[in-house]
Amino acid sequence: MREVAIVGIGITKFGETWEMSFREIGIQAGLMAMQDAKLTAEDIDALYVGNMSAGRYIEQEHIAALIADYSGLARDHIPATRVEAAGASGGLAVRQAYMAVASGMHDIIVVGGAEKMTDVGDAASNAIQSSAADQQWESVFGATSPSLHAMIARRHMFQYGTTREQIAQVAVKNHRHGALNPNAQFQKEIDLKTVLRSGMVADPLGVFDCAPISDGAAAVILCPMDMARKYTDAPIRILASAQASDTLALHSRSDICTFEATKFAAMNAYRQAGIASKDVQIAEVHDDFTISEILAIEDLGFFEKGQGGKATEDGQTAIGGSIAINTSGGLKARGDPLGATGVAQIVELVQQLRGQAGKRQVGGAKYALAQNVGGTGATAVVHILGVQ
Amino acid sequence: MREVAIVGIGITKFGETWEMSFREIGIQAGLMAMQDAKLTAEDIDALYVGNMSAGRYIEQEHIAALIADYSGLARDHIPATRVEAAGASGGLAVRQAYMAVASGMHDIIVVGGAEKMTDVGDAASNAIQSSAADQQWESVFGATSPSLHAMIARRHMFQYGTTREQIAQVAVKNHRHGALNPNAQFQKEIDLKTVLRSGMVADPLGVFDCAPISDGAAAVILCPMDMARKYTDAPIRILASAQASDTLALHSRSDICTFEATKFAAMNAYRQAGIASKDVQIAEVHDDFTISEILAIEDLGFFEKGQGGKATEDGQTAIGGSIAINTSGGLKARGDPLGATGVAQIVELVQQLRGQAGKRQVGGAKYALAQNVGGTGATAVVHILGVQ
Repeated sequence: MREVAIVGIGITKFGETWEMSFREIGIQAGLMAMQDAKLTAEDIDALYVGNMSAGRYIEQEHIAALIADYSGLARDHIPATRVEAAGASGGLAVRQAYMAVASGMHDIIVVGGAEKMTDVGDAASNAIQSSAADQQWESVFGATSPSLHAMIARRHMFQYGTTREQIAQVAVKNHRHGALNPNAQFQKEIDLKTVLRSGMVADPLGVFDCAPISDGAAAVILCPMDMARKYTDAPIRILASAQASDTLALHSRSDICTFEATKFAAMNAYRQAGIASKDVQIAEVHDDFTISEILAIEDLGFFEKGQGGKATEDGQTAIGGSIAINTSGGLKARGDPLGATGVAQIVELVQQLRGQAGKRQVGGAKYALAQNVGGTGATAVVHILGVQ
Repeated sequence: MREVAIVGIGITKFGETWEMSFREIGIQAGLMAMQDAKLTAEDIDALYVGNMSAGRYIEQEHIAALIADYSGLARDHIPATRVEAAGASGGLAVRQAYMAVASGMHDIIVVGGAEKMTDVGDAASNAIQSSAADQQWESVFGATSPSLHAMIARRHMFQYGTTREQIAQVAVKNHRHGALNPNAQFQKEIDLKTVLRSGMVADPLGVFDCAPISDGAAAVILCPMDMARKYTDAPIRILASAQASDTLALHSRSDICTFEATKFAAMNAYRQAGIASKDVQIAEVHDDFTISEILAIEDLGFFEKGQGGKATEDGQTAIGGSIAINTSGGLKARGDPLGATGVAQIVELVQQLRGQAGKRQVGGAKYALAQNVGGTGATAVVHILGVQ
């Protein structure tokens, strides 16, 4: 397998972008990434797009061909492929592109992630998000993404003594990071009281424990490592790309406080990269709910199982702590346009490893990790990046 | 890149399977393929699923994880990835799996394609199928898949003198083939008069010019060529896997009688395989409408542009003709469960190359080609298979 580098990145400002359509945000991110790598359309060999549910959000399937067309890439008839695994769609798209370059099939690939979630009403929005869970055994009985994660939170509190305040601190920290990110949906700090007093969604999770509904797109450009210096002075190496699955329904698992898919993907990723969890200095993890970040930092091996809440409360996961988690603001504050999220994570890590993260820059990081999750942990993908 | 072989195949009977759910047909095809290769779940390294629109047909996204779960594959936490490009979803899933094996990332992969189309009413069904076209510039103004293809048919008749009768002969021939296929949705011959007198859908195309609404699933198992003999005495080699895109909207093209995506994918595939169009003895092509088969056999280089109708009328594309097109019955008679179609094409070609195609067996074929199309030609994928 060939070594693979990231040579370009692009991202739109996440939020409610009513003035732009799905295709417009998708194209914007892709063009930014191409400009970043100083590429033109003729250089591109293939396009991958991560997207969860354009079929329902904007009544449009076939969206990789759509983006290729309106970006001018269809003129060269390049392969355009959409990949979907609910909230992990973006991470999976990066992984497919990684394999296409590693295999020698393609040289230069644009990977985009995009979702336009604000064009539908609340009822449709809930139904669409619930389609990441098991329709026949969960969603149809009224289980939603917040309620399933609330059960996980309750169990984690019972089993490990994690407190409501510790869980809420994830939101406080991620909003603090988001305030330093000009592309974040929420660039505003919040305090613990605000989280604890926010409107209840699914006990114990309130509004401020949940990632928002977002529009947004992100893109990265991959090429073989030995071509990377043509396009950038600071190529970032993909050291590992691993993916795992678990039962779709939460009730089929022996332990709901661990996402086995995350553990398996991480184990494979650490082996591929030849590093251990302690070597990682920066990570973007899938905090679609505050409790999800606590599970993630435990399942990725950054902290012992049950200690994620305490570590967060102690400030160990903030910029300046022992490991900087979600420097972008995470899904909570940067926003969570489903298919875009996994690609946006990679964009943030590249900015950090290049030393281009502005006010939220973490100094001297060598290894960075992204964990992107679909549904209630039925899909997880882990990438490890490193400076060249 | 490693050489890749197909060592197992499975397919459900296509049709209206109201007694089985989406997950049941998906699992059935996968298990048949695993039995065919004498594999157990522990042997499988990854799963790919081609599916167009489960989000709208059954309100379930995240369906690769779903199939992995209910097949028992989630116990081993294997990566499960859904790929979508409208009607080309199945072919693209095969291609992603091909690259994953070729790259060395995975050894044994199950590729499934599945769609359950009969669980929604006619209006929803039309809307979903129209989401393969350009929602903003075609579908929203009332253009549907049949009406777009009717425009192509009219133009082909005007430009090349193709007759209504020649177009109808595609359906007659494919029903004759389908009558020999025990898994086909329609196993009944029809005559020219039946096609010409069938209810008008979009002038000049009648009901019998359109592939049906279908439920169904198909699966194949890929592994590196040098492992293939462990699982089968008759491994089939994937000689080429190529994919191309075009504008999503028909009106953006300079010539609507040619699918440039098909031409580009075919050109790349012939180059990869080191063969020419004349070397192909069997092909499964994407006859979602009768006119589509005529375009396909021209764009793939089997006949000169404009001669596809005449060649069909002369019997050259039937079993026993100069090249056997759609021995399975094609989308027209075997059925067209969108995401399953591209995988079902591969299943048919493997059966033919193994000599297991029963009454529809074509003798002595060495090279076989599959062409799978998304939308009105915005995506095309071409695979070339060969005996070992």
